[in-house]
Amino acid sequence: MSWAPEAIDLPDVLAEVTACFHAYEAAFMQNDLPALIGFFWEDERLTRYGVVDRQLGHAEQAAYRHSVPKPGFTRQLENLRIHCFGPDMAVALVEFLRSDTALRGFQSQTWARLPEGWRIVSAHVSMIPWPPT
Amino acid sequence: MSWAPEAIDLPDVLAEVTACFHAYEAAFMQNDLPALIGFFWEDERLTRYGVVDRQLGHAEQAAYRHSVPKPGFTRQLENLRIHCFGPDMAVALVEFLRSDTALRGFQSQTWARLPEGWRIVSAHVSMIPWPPT
Repeated sequence: MSWAPEAIDLPDVLAEVTACFHAYEAAFMQNDLPALIGFFWEDERLTRYGVVDRQLGHAEQAAYRHSVPKPGFTRQLENLRIHCFGPDMAVALVEFLRSDTALRGFQSQTWARLPEGWRIVSAHVSMIPWPPT
Repeated sequence: MSWAPEAIDLPDVLAEVTACFHAYEAAFMQNDLPALIGFFWEDERLTRYGVVDRQLGHAEQAAYRHSVPKPGFTRQLENLRIHCFGPDMAVALVEFLRSDTALRGFQSQTWARLPEGWRIVSAHVSMIPWPPT
């Protein structure tokens, strides 16, 4: 098997994942912990690499979320790129500019539709000086 | 549809993606440009966020690879976590320690099986001080 071109970026799937992406962003900015933690795959195979942190497994992810305060900044998203492969898998890539720093942020997520719903199965966030010197 | 637990981490798929992951690592360290560039989805929807760079689309990715020299370091991989969803989609997460810096590196890739073979459809790399202060 493989993903034929017509199985990539099915409009209904793109719409679903885009809605999930924005719901995650809202939960993140509001520090809505049950929602935020609920977006992640409840499994020890979840991985998230953060700006200054790392969580291997959902238990570490939940503990991390409980350990950090509500964001003291706003963030402006740029270059959102969501792409779906078949009906049950997607990547969501976005850059962000935070109100508290001149660094540019990069956020990547891989989403999978599980029996319980769409969940982030891996995520990575970084911030770097921009433009590159 | 959704990924039932038994569709996650099929052994044959894990083995295939693990082989791709290590072939990519070898091509990266050797700066084998045709191989390295060939691992990425040949599409403008490819996204890669780097340690000090960003490529939106395969053309930017190819140009970037041609612009950077062969790595002047070795890297030791830690905590490799590869997980597959169905037969055609996978995430590969790994941490790395480079011989030229005390920073810890984080590399995430999402792989999709396309008609032309397994390809990286999104990737993200970052390096940060570790352990967090």
